[in-house]
Amino acid sequence: MWEYEQPVNIIFGNGSINKLGKIIEDNGYKRGLLVTSKFFYKSGFAEKLKEDSQNEIIDIFSEVEPNPTIINIDNCAGIIRNNNIGFIVALGGGSVIDCAKASGAVSLTNDSIKKYHGTNLSLPNKSIPIIAIPTTSGTGSEVTCVSVVTDKELGKKTPIVSKSFYPKLALIDPELTYSLPDNITASTGIDVLCHAVEGYWSKGHQPICDALAVHSARLVFDYLERAYLNPRDGVAKEKLAEASIIAGLSFTLPKTTSSHACSFLLTSKYNIPHGEACGLTLDYFTRFNGEKDERVNEFSRLLGFKDANEMADNIYRLKKNIGLLVDLKHLKLTDNDILELVEKSKNANLMNNPIDISDDVLLKMYTTFK
Amino acid sequence: MWEYEQPVNIIFGNGSINKLGKIIEDNGYKRGLLVTSKFFYKSGFAEKLKEDSQNEIIDIFSEVEPNPTIINIDNCAGIIRNNNIGFIVALGGGSVIDCAKASGAVSLTNDSIKKYHGTNLSLPNKSIPIIAIPTTSGTGSEVTCVSVVTDKELGKKTPIVSKSFYPKLALIDPELTYSLPDNITASTGIDVLCHAVEGYWSKGHQPICDALAVHSARLVFDYLERAYLNPRDGVAKEKLAEASIIAGLSFTLPKTTSSHACSFLLTSKYNIPHGEACGLTLDYFTRFNGEKDERVNEFSRLLGFKDANEMADNIYRLKKNIGLLVDLKHLKLTDNDILELVEKSKNANLMNNPIDISDDVLLKMYTTFK
Repeated sequence: MWEYEQPVNIIFGNGSINKLGKIIEDNGYKRGLLVTSKFFYKSGFAEKLKEDSQNEIIDIFSEVEPNPTIINIDNCAGIIRNNNIGFIVALGGGSVIDCAKASGAVSLTNDSIKKYHGTNLSLPNKSIPIIAIPTTSGTGSEVTCVSVVTDKELGKKTPIVSKSFYPKLALIDPELTYSLPDNITASTGIDVLCHAVEGYWSKGHQPICDALAVHSARLVFDYLERAYLNPRDGVAKEKLAEASIIAGLSFTLPKTTSSHACSFLLTSKYNIPHGEACGLTLDYFTRFNGEKDERVNEFSRLLGFKDANEMADNIYRLKKNIGLLVDLKHLKLTDNDILELVEKSKNANLMNNPIDISDDVLLKMYTTFK
Repeated sequence: MWEYEQPVNIIFGNGSINKLGKIIEDNGYKRGLLVTSKFFYKSGFAEKLKEDSQNEIIDIFSEVEPNPTIINIDNCAGIIRNNNIGFIVALGGGSVIDCAKASGAVSLTNDSIKKYHGTNLSLPNKSIPIIAIPTTSGTGSEVTCVSVVTDKELGKKTPIVSKSFYPKLALIDPELTYSLPDNITASTGIDVLCHAVEGYWSKGHQPICDALAVHSARLVFDYLERAYLNPRDGVAKEKLAEASIIAGLSFTLPKTTSSHACSFLLTSKYNIPHGEACGLTLDYFTRFNGEKDERVNEFSRLLGFKDANEMADNIYRLKKNIGLLVDLKHLKLTDNDILELVEKSKNANLMNNPIDISDDVLLKMYTTFK
């Protein structure tokens, strides 16, 4: 028994951002807020987009931090409430889009987002329309109903899930990724591969997402190294953008698993970028899961590999070739650090892994990275 | 540049039809009309479903003909209007679902569906909620915004396209297909393959639909013959149901092409079932398109074939093995019949074919079937 839901419309293509004004007009959207990062504010790009919107974007909120906080979201929701905002344009990476999604939904309540963060309370299933314009090829946030929110006060970073978070439209313009720094191309690109692979082998797997996972993983293997080595290669960047949105569709329902589970402390404590932290363990878990779950080998064969081990070899080689970590030697981890990593890896995502992962397995894995 | 839209939620699984009452309740639907065929009315299955709906289905319309007519739709819309119907459950093959979709939308106007049939007028983008429950593995109608309508008076069979036609939910219970006659399994199964292959090579192809086409075509090659030879093989029937819905998603945006274009007269004049008529030319066009369009060979390779010719060989063999027509010898066609087939094949679907198809090509093809 499986279910599928995908209410986000998608427009994909080079130059598609130029359609924004027309899209706003066609939908009759009024009084927009542009949510973005300081980077796009300072570069003047946010202001340009506001002008291009035929004056329907009336304000810009650019206070989103790299991991959006309760305070970011409550402030943004306040602006939405106080200015009678009718729609949101979210321009940025996952953090910006996550902030926009949570702000839009909570703005229709009188609450702080804190009320719904790591609690069992559900947000009402309504929001204001969001047009999500991702500027990296990685997050997938533009097609998911998840927003990862950080409570700095409590030191808590947790996803909130709500159907109200689905954007109305994901507008994907691969040209926005042409000028990404190489290390961002690498880390967000490997995150795409994690979304596809983990979505496929997740306990929550289902056939539509399976098909999309195969398609997007193939694109990452074919184009990530090429895009990293030739940042001006438009075809490679476009294929990565395609991989990113389709991988987003492939994991949003099945959810991610072991590699995401093991990434969180690596990011929050050791500052390893999210995608790079997820990718660190992907080849390890490909071998581990492949030993007991025949689907992992089937997936590998659909991609043209002999089996899971050969796919793992290729993931390792890809990471080396695009300058990503393949171990944690530089951290000079102590035994206690390793134990903490083991402990903090045992979160909800780990439960989605198709094969049970014991403390011993985690300990052995982290020790090989030492 | 491509766009994607797929607003239909899907629930798939053996026994899922038993969830109907709960689904109606959860959505707060009231005063339902069950649209179905005489077959399900006479068998008592329609009445049972009405009872299972916790009395929220208040009436049954079972007057749908195999190719739903203007009169069927206007009558059904009349019942919806006069009884203040709040939702529709469509139980049947493509004809029943097409009838429900058109009736639901036109019931919110004061018009006959005739006003929108083969004219340039668009239906307003609203309808009443439809739960589509397909009973064959073929149509794809449960996830599309198309309804094929026949005007008997004018002898006109034409699709109407409207966003208002998307069902709210496609409820797929593979067990409903267990008792299908073998020839229906064969003809609807080859229709699924046509949807996937034609959706992939259509001029309107786009990557999400590509990925879904590969997945569903693979399932047809793996399971159609098995399901035909062993009608009680639940796994094979379930995989065909999966192939059908996913192929539906794969062609609804790109649209079908040459094989569908060449099927219409074969069905309307020579009574060849829709899927069988489409399948008749599929291997021919696979070879023809494969000569000039490298994507057809890529698609074949993704399915494990050497090239388009090897895939065509396998389509031909599959048709032979499941009792489908591979020529038209039994019709004893005259030269004039052939010319009429050529003429009537030049419809809108033919324009979606990736390679231009001249009259000479059609003439040569139909002559080989003679």
